[in-house]
Amino acid sequence: MKFSPLVDELIQTLKCLPGVGPKSAQRMAFQLLERDRKAGQSLSQALSKAMSDVGHCQSCRTFTEEVHCPICASHKRGLSQVICVVETPADVLAIEAGGHFSGRYFVLLGHLSPLDGVGPDELGLALLEEHLASGEVAELILATNPTVEGDATAHFIADIAKSHNVIVSRIAHGVPVGGELEYVDSTTLALSFNGRLPL
Amino acid sequence: MKFSPLVDELIQTLKCLPGVGPKSAQRMAFQLLERDRKAGQSLSQALSKAMSDVGHCQSCRTFTEEVHCPICASHKRGLSQVICVVETPADVLAIEAGGHFSGRYFVLLGHLSPLDGVGPDELGLALLEEHLASGEVAELILATNPTVEGDATAHFIADIAKSHNVIVSRIAHGVPVGGELEYVDSTTLALSFNGRLPL
Ligand SMILES: [Zn+2]
Ligand SMILES: [Zn+2]
Repeated sequence: MKFSPLVDELIQTLKCLPGVGPKSAQRMAFQLLERDRKAGQSLSQALSKAMSDVGHCQSCRTFTEEVHCPICASHKRGLSQVICVVETPADVLAIEAGGHFSGRYFVLLGHLSPLDGVGPDELGLALLEEHLASGEVAELILATNPTVEGDATAHFIADIAKSHNVIVSRIAHGVPVGGELEYVDSTTLALSFNGRLPL
Repeated sequence: MKFSPLVDELIQTLKCLPGVGPKSAQRMAFQLLERDRKAGQSLSQALSKAMSDVGHCQSCRTFTEEVHCPICASHKRGLSQVICVVETPADVLAIEAGGHFSGRYFVLLGHLSPLDGVGPDELGLALLEEHLASGEVAELILATNPTVEGDATAHFIADIAKSHNVIVSRIAHGVPVGGELEYVDSTTLALSFNGRLPL
């Protein structure tokens, strides 16, 4: 015997969230129903608005509901001649938390992975090349993850940068190999920025 | 530097879910935005409908958007003369998963806790007493948790049942089947000694 249809549906749909299994979904549904219906309604509205309105920054590809994200739209940073290339928006947040990088970003939203059908098009490399060809980029810092795919992606992008005579570097492997960039502490991240090597 | 307002709001509101901290909220938001906007929209709708339409069963108090929950509305079980009293809707699910109980339930949605302002009114005991007074209940099985509050609640309800000449029992507490005696806590062991049955 299950719950009523609406309660069942709420539990089922909560399971679409990463890391949420049947037991957690049930606990979440009951907590919202019992104690926090207002929070549940706020979440519903935030989800609906974000799912329908959030697109990608036309300059760096991170998530935003505007044409340009706050960083690209800022006077200080939007025209910076240094671009840091990362795999995900969470990586941007990790680097921003360190506070030592003042350039702009380019977010690949993934890494080269031919077996999964992720090639240069999926990573927006044509847009990145436009930036490189514009003459407005002095240095490209590659901060993809230190994994096989992240390294391959970095080398692929390095070749494009070199063909446009743009200095290209890769953040130093102070980031533990096999680890994920967004979980690294800000000091290690700072070291890895300082220790970047030409490619 | 944060994300765009809609993305920030989504991350903030996801943190209202139990067990979801800032990192998980961020991971959930990005996963939905990147890979599963349809699931995000479904979750939004399920939340909105459940928060506004789900109330309590007028017979057993569990969550339902109907007047009566599926169990109370069923011909087989809704008129059963045996009522099992539990603290939460999740307890109903746990007992239903066992499949050995065929009566109906009464869901307290808590336990007596005077310091938190939870008294007989908050637990719907007037409604339970109506059931007991109707002459349609032969036995009341108390399945509140084996905690100080759960025990106090069980004894309080047992007194009401006795005043209506309804047989009242409490589910047995002891060493779980398949569990190892040496790993069972001393309170549970004490309960299992007190509840010993002749062989
Ligand atoms: Zn941007
Ligand atoms: Zn019911």
